[in-house]
Amino acid sequence: MSIRVGILGYGNLGRGVECAIKHTPDMELAAVFTRRDPERVRILTAGAKVLPVSEAEKMQDQIDVMIICGGSATDLPKQTPHYAKFYNVVDSFDTHAKIPEHFAAVDAAARESGKVAAISVGWDPGMFSLNRMIAGAILPQGSSYTFWGKGVSQGHSDAIRRIEGVRDARQYTIPVEEALNAVRSGSNPELTTRQKHTRECFVVAEEGADLERIRREIVTMPNYFADYDTTVHFISEEELNRDHAGIPHGGFVIHTGKTGANLEHNHVIEYSLKLDSNPEFTSSVLVAYARAVYRMNREGMSGCKTVFDIAPAYLSPMSGDELRAHLL
Amino acid sequence: MSIRVGILGYGNLGRGVECAIKHTPDMELAAVFTRRDPERVRILTAGAKVLPVSEAEKMQDQIDVMIICGGSATDLPKQTPHYAKFYNVVDSFDTHAKIPEHFAAVDAAARESGKVAAISVGWDPGMFSLNRMIAGAILPQGSSYTFWGKGVSQGHSDAIRRIEGVRDARQYTIPVEEALNAVRSGSNPELTTRQKHTRECFVVAEEGADLERIRREIVTMPNYFADYDTTVHFISEEELNRDHAGIPHGGFVIHTGKTGANLEHNHVIEYSLKLDSNPEFTSSVLVAYARAVYRMNREGMSGCKTVFDIAPAYLSPMSGDELRAHLL
Repeated sequence: MSIRVGILGYGNLGRGVECAIKHTPDMELAAVFTRRDPERVRILTAGAKVLPVSEAEKMQDQIDVMIICGGSATDLPKQTPHYAKFYNVVDSFDTHAKIPEHFAAVDAAARESGKVAAISVGWDPGMFSLNRMIAGAILPQGSSYTFWGKGVSQGHSDAIRRIEGVRDARQYTIPVEEALNAVRSGSNPELTTRQKHTRECFVVAEEGADLERIRREIVTMPNYFADYDTTVHFISEEELNRDHAGIPHGGFVIHTGKTGANLEHNHVIEYSLKLDSNPEFTSSVLVAYARAVYRMNREGMSGCKTVFDIAPAYLSPMSGDELRAHLL
Repeated sequence: MSIRVGILGYGNLGRGVECAIKHTPDMELAAVFTRRDPERVRILTAGAKVLPVSEAEKMQDQIDVMIICGGSATDLPKQTPHYAKFYNVVDSFDTHAKIPEHFAAVDAAARESGKVAAISVGWDPGMFSLNRMIAGAILPQGSSYTFWGKGVSQGHSDAIRRIEGVRDARQYTIPVEEALNAVRSGSNPELTTRQKHTRECFVVAEEGADLERIRREIVTMPNYFADYDTTVHFISEEELNRDHAGIPHGGFVIHTGKTGANLEHNHVIEYSLKLDSNPEFTSSVLVAYARAVYRMNREGMSGCKTVFDIAPAYLSPMSGDELRAHLL
């Protein structure tokens, strides 16, 4: 029998989850829950329901796992603990500093309900965290470095759009090749923010706007751009739509460490992602972890988990015998 | 209190385990067990015992985990099931085709004794398996490719040494750059053995030996070389010892897959290792999994596990709180 999945929130992430389920034989989409008028939300999956979010507490007999596709700033801190009272749940909570707090709230709810919740699932936090953790456990005499990009940062693009005279913008975070290579060399460099990443901005200005002022406001913006080497390109709306419509992303986790009686041997562990669609990849990770939480709950487990706490075999539809025979 | 480790077998792998424990604060070496005369085996760790292998069944009160550093061909199929009767154990069994059989034997012993055993731990099988499995679970519409090298293949070096007129040899397995790039492109190429790897051999010939005959015997050797483009260099013993004394290795697991309503987006997940010392890196993985089996056993688990079955958090000396705060 298929694992029946609910999607709460139907933005980029929710649509990505729907697509991932479509290509996953052992799972099926039961319903999408939306805060919009369900009549106006069109989904891709024939047979799946579109329901108002108010219905989302009432379908325990039809849904095995709820994938919560809200935003980390305000949605998930409320939604995930709430729905963990009713369902096995998975979210992609990515405010790193607030993870301990979020974990505690979700854990309390999931223990109480006897369900399994997986939080902070995706690629960072998620796959990158897993690689930082495992590499550090294998080579404790070493350091991990994380680089992001080349990819679109939604937050930085939004920050540019708030500048007066800007009609639209797209910002790419780009890792600096020399920094990557310095890390790979095992020299254990100390790298400043500026040395690790550059930022490239494609901006559509309003007609007659002062481009030099916009450029200056971007490159001096505290937190977002001031600490980086930032390049600004002014382009037409047509160019933006033609050349920058995608949401690619990716990055690198590189861990270098030493072994040997006198630490005379160097090793490099490198994990990298090159993603055409950031939300669709994140969604694919969410769906694999939805399988895991369902199966863990069937085995009697409960409480909040992260990627650290979940044995990898739970992610795969294959049996232990199959995994050992074909993938070990 | 430290986790007390025993090492069974003191070759390259056993010495690597000893070095890894030396640099790992929460573990200590209790004893090395050897088939050689213990009087003649000198180890690096002050305070650790060197004992004959016959003593290895009798130290349950002094050893929490036994790391079994024998060979996969004949040692481990006997040793691991045997010592799983007495200890939590870890091995690096790497005969891929016989893993199911080995798993069954070790699982029976470990269930009976109530201990935890981890088999086939290292990098392939091991970290590479983990990456193949997780990537395939996340992007089921895709394919995984494994490349090995650049690195020394002990088996191939030995095969050359058995040729008449060869005094010594070192063989490197080298992934073909074009093949790596074809895989990374997402084009999902079908690659022959010859297209994936080349082999480079450094051979010290006996004086007066027929070099052309040796070269021909190498490049036409079935299974080992005939299916590859193989280069043979004849060098002096001095050069071999000077330039080819190390045991480097490494490789790549590359998974490409598609997402989206019509699979219109491509993604590349790449994991790679670049290792100065193959045995020391494998040993470092063994030691991290020794920590895991000890902790799992303390929580009441038993039976045989592989890297698929072990939640990553068990590998790290950090607590769940610390992991979530610093590495997620």
